[in-house]
Amino acid sequence: MTQKEIAKLLNVSQPTVSMALNGSERISRELRDAVRKLADRSGYRPNLAGQLLRQGRSNVVGAVFPSLTNNFFAELFQELQNQLIPHGYLLYLVQPGADGELPAAAECLRRMQAAGVIAIGSAAESLLRLKEDGIALVLYGGDSRLELGVSQVLPDRYAAGREAVRHLLAAGRRRIAFLGMKNPQEPRCRAYLDVLAEAGLEPLTLRAGEDGDSPEAGCRLMRELLFSRPDTDAVFMHNDELAVGALRAALQLGRKVPEELAVFGFDSIGTGRYLSPALTSVEQPRREIAAALVAELLATLADPAHCRFVPVACRLVIRESA
Amino acid sequence: MTQKEIAKLLNVSQPTVSMALNGSERISRELRDAVRKLADRSGYRPNLAGQLLRQGRSNVVGAVFPSLTNNFFAELFQELQNQLIPHGYLLYLVQPGADGELPAAAECLRRMQAAGVIAIGSAAESLLRLKEDGIALVLYGGDSRLELGVSQVLPDRYAAGREAVRHLLAAGRRRIAFLGMKNPQEPRCRAYLDVLAEAGLEPLTLRAGEDGDSPEAGCRLMRELLFSRPDTDAVFMHNDELAVGALRAALQLGRKVPEELAVFGFDSIGTGRYLSPALTSVEQPRREIAAALVAELLATLADPAHCRFVPVACRLVIRESA
Repeated sequence: MTQKEIAKLLNVSQPTVSMALNGSERISRELRDAVRKLADRSGYRPNLAGQLLRQGRSNVVGAVFPSLTNNFFAELFQELQNQLIPHGYLLYLVQPGADGELPAAAECLRRMQAAGVIAIGSAAESLLRLKEDGIALVLYGGDSRLELGVSQVLPDRYAAGREAVRHLLAAGRRRIAFLGMKNPQEPRCRAYLDVLAEAGLEPLTLRAGEDGDSPEAGCRLMRELLFSRPDTDAVFMHNDELAVGALRAALQLGRKVPEELAVFGFDSIGTGRYLSPALTSVEQPRREIAAALVAELLATLADPAHCRFVPVACRLVIRESA
Repeated sequence: MTQKEIAKLLNVSQPTVSMALNGSERISRELRDAVRKLADRSGYRPNLAGQLLRQGRSNVVGAVFPSLTNNFFAELFQELQNQLIPHGYLLYLVQPGADGELPAAAECLRRMQAAGVIAIGSAAESLLRLKEDGIALVLYGGDSRLELGVSQVLPDRYAAGREAVRHLLAAGRRRIAFLGMKNPQEPRCRAYLDVLAEAGLEPLTLRAGEDGDSPEAGCRLMRELLFSRPDTDAVFMHNDELAVGALRAALQLGRKVPEELAVFGFDSIGTGRYLSPALTSVEQPRREIAAALVAELLATLADPAHCRFVPVACRLVIRESA
């Protein structure tokens, strides 16, 4: 069944059906539901080729993400793809190797005539001009509320970071380090610094290196830490990729985890629960985040002036390592 | 610089430049190198929008893969993407949830007017008709040489599987189980059955369940095994996703790995080396596999009759778990 046929059956226009299928809020919820139900029942599937060729605007949505070898982003990408397909959009991964490559990535998305782009917050500045080319832009994450005139879905990493460090304090840890710092303003690091200051404790941060967020890097950071400060009794890691390597290094250096050294991760990647000891972490709810990003993207496609700030709560996942 | 300008400088036609940039073997290697060098120096980047709109054939290449939450496929997808971008092709992920959804996936790729498709071998039958629609099809893996008239890149899992089981035998293991079997003809399982028969040992296989290749499934399989056959002294796992969960279950049930129970994985995913004990596995060389898939795709795009069988050697990665 085509959009035209659905329109005829419901006695509305074809553009109305199209907007309804794209989740436009200019269409009443009742009509959207009716259109969706009829489309589902009749086996309607969007004519992707037609969309690709129509008016020089493709139905490609770019995802500007760091490497998929980071489990968290692989899982988020997968979730976004699952949620975008029913709307007829194809998710295309753009991975700028370094920040310097972002303008080239933006140019690529512009030439592709992407319908929209979902990008990590740190890429915002380089991509903002895409809006002028009529490309719907939605941001995921970032160090804070960015107020850039585009929708932003932001997990509340500051609140979760505070909870995580408080959990370590409550367990009697006093020499707590933060490994993999990007900058002191990054919310989980800021949370760490704030809670330690409130408790009157000395902070100790080790910066992320050029080896990025890999387990290798986590391994190296933990070795550096235990060499210079062997009495550390807890680490809060910037993310689970780093924590996987840090845990391994700590065990190799003979530390009992969590008895002598607690390891707290961030992201709650799939493999974390299968490590020994299982990784304690913070869950950023992927499905909820993906749903919010897709909703914001569809709203921006329907109305380019749309802009909303969507905070998402995170939760601690206490397993064995802390 | 445009293709036209490159053509003028080299005194050839624009279609020749286009074919050279796409790696067509109808163009001499010398000319291809000269075009590529000039394109690189002049900062030439393919006009993706133009390609998207030209003659109803897009520059989208579909990747028919199982879930990206399987680390191996996330890493292979990433590698393919990195290698396709310089040729102006966009990799688009298609994930049929179940085998029954493959015809719908094929229809989607046809409607998208994909230029080509890179698909896992088990999807071959459902996708073969795409060739009639002028879509270049290249297969990755499969249980054997498929002889379907399309190129196939096949890691030699049978040879690697034999080596893995021999490694376990050489270490004195005699009660070796295979967990996560798809079918007895699948090469690593066949290798296991053959080597055990040659050694006069009784095989023990546990089938993969509906929970697929996840760590959860590996956990469940290992529990079932140790409950029914507590004297098992080694397991060969269908892949590392399963092995991650199996290792965890064995440790939780108090088994010393590898002293009492050896765990051998397959795929050598990134996190394997950071488990405790680090996971012994078989490496399917991702970069080499991606390079072969891209080369076969470009050759098929240049000549639809192209068809080649490309075996790829795998190697054991002996760490701690076996």
